[in-house]
Amino acid sequence: MALGVGFIGFGEAARVFAGGLRGTGPVLLAFCRGPRNAPPYAPAFRQAAAALGVELVDTLDELARRADVLFSAVATPAAAAVASECAAALRPGQLYVDINAVAPATKEAIAAAVAARGASFVDAELMGAASLYGAAVPLYVSGDGAAEFQRRFAPLGLNVTLVPGAPGAAAALKMLRSVVTKGIEAVVVEAMFAAVRAGMAREAFAAITEPMDAVKFSDFARMCLTSDPIHAGRRAEEMIGVGEVLRALAVDPIMVEAARRRLLWSAGLGARPEGEREGMTDYLDVLRLYDRLDRSREQGGSS
Amino acid sequence: MALGVGFIGFGEAARVFAGGLRGTGPVLLAFCRGPRNAPPYAPAFRQAAAALGVELVDTLDELARRADVLFSAVATPAAAAVASECAAALRPGQLYVDINAVAPATKEAIAAAVAARGASFVDAELMGAASLYGAAVPLYVSGDGAAEFQRRFAPLGLNVTLVPGAPGAAAALKMLRSVVTKGIEAVVVEAMFAAVRAGMAREAFAAITEPMDAVKFSDFARMCLTSDPIHAGRRAEEMIGVGEVLRALAVDPIMVEAARRRLLWSAGLGARPEGEREGMTDYLDVLRLYDRLDRSREQGGSS
Repeated sequence: MALGVGFIGFGEAARVFAGGLRGTGPVLLAFCRGPRNAPPYAPAFRQAAAALGVELVDTLDELARRADVLFSAVATPAAAAVASECAAALRPGQLYVDINAVAPATKEAIAAAVAARGASFVDAELMGAASLYGAAVPLYVSGDGAAEFQRRFAPLGLNVTLVPGAPGAAAALKMLRSVVTKGIEAVVVEAMFAAVRAGMAREAFAAITEPMDAVKFSDFARMCLTSDPIHAGRRAEEMIGVGEVLRALAVDPIMVEAARRRLLWSAGLGARPEGEREGMTDYLDVLRLYDRLDRSREQGGSS
Repeated sequence: MALGVGFIGFGEAARVFAGGLRGTGPVLLAFCRGPRNAPPYAPAFRQAAAALGVELVDTLDELARRADVLFSAVATPAAAAVASECAAALRPGQLYVDINAVAPATKEAIAAAVAARGASFVDAELMGAASLYGAAVPLYVSGDGAAEFQRRFAPLGLNVTLVPGAPGAAAALKMLRSVVTKGIEAVVVEAMFAAVRAGMAREAFAAITEPMDAVKFSDFARMCLTSDPIHAGRRAEEMIGVGEVLRALAVDPIMVEAARRRLLWSAGLGARPEGEREGMTDYLDVLRLYDRLDRSREQGGSS
């Protein structure tokens, strides 16, 4: 019998995965109870789902009964309540896959509710926007059902990476990643808002993105980390002038000021002599040095 | 006669350009007066310069006399003083190229000092780290000597983009770019410092960089801008939980908190209805909408 895959919530992420899984074998079902779409569904919504090969069902209970694998893809604040409602209908052998961007502790509470019913839990984290990557969006998975999830779905085209550790380990990685991705969104918005005010939006977009397109992001990130011990102080200084340019354009330099503070923190650790002496080329060495200097500063009480 | 190229300052940037220009025709000279290297130079420093095909000279005046093109590549705070000292020795036909990361207003003051001697000024901005890109680092140039600079040096392998406008136009673009690049450094340091404290540094580096390596940065930046009107509010909410995770690791969430504030600013503009109605796909439309909404909010006095 075909694998039953049920989506709880049918927003962008669920649609992207449904589109990717369509025609690969599983029967696709969805239940949706949002502010815009809820049972009885509007005809246009049913047609949109049908066009993706998805049958809409009217209750969460029916979805849990008919699906072997449940994907929870709801509004983030609803993830925990939906999981505890759904848990009552779970049975051994099922996989409950939570793809919502909630905290590791929330994922672990959901894992416990799922385990209490004998089903398996998967903390599945989208490491990128479904709109940008489609169904090949990198999925990092942890939890007792993670290996089975990879075994079932990697052959169907999903891009699955196993994360060892607690059920919330993938969520913890996602949050660390969000520091960078949402941070990039914020700095791009701040820079480009200033650029449009300066009448140089196209030129600034090219000046920002073309050099970044010419290098691998991983190389850029590595260079940021390994050069930080030497250059953070000078770069923090530069941010003072950058902030003045933004203020002159009536743009609040929120990210500029924060970057200045973060770079000053780096400079204040006093890693420069060791960084220059050792000629650090491994970002892990830099991070371990920072960890050690920050701890000894805390203990010295001279922060 | 061979073109004389003189470097004022002989740090990393000057060495990278000297290395790139070596063997392409110009006679390479340098004058250096830093805390570590100054006339009379140490034998090891002279040898290092000679290995790059560069002759060290003992006075700025000699450098200005013998060079047709002068590159100022000094410690940023010294740029203005060095320019006014050097200006006294300039003559018509010379190019004075300032590659230091100083404010547009400082570039314009230097341009005026250079123009007063009949020489031509080039505001040349490195749009990337010389350590990462080498002599092919993108150089954005403005000023009355910019076109001649491009004509002379693009054939020798430098990667030159002309920026129209005032002498400081390239500097203004560089500052807007710095919002993003120094911001990325700051978010990468913050995320990875938390990751090393969480014992997941390698996993986090992969989770952060592998998905970014799989897309062009320009596409990512475009997605950030075009999705910001719809999703900034939800993403700002997510940053609350991210900040808690960092605090639990004894990491001050400086960039996380700033990103939350910047995303809340976006959400507070009220662009979502228009963004959804228009289905914005051009980042310029988003920026113009933000500009309009921010101005009308300021005028309404309800910010």
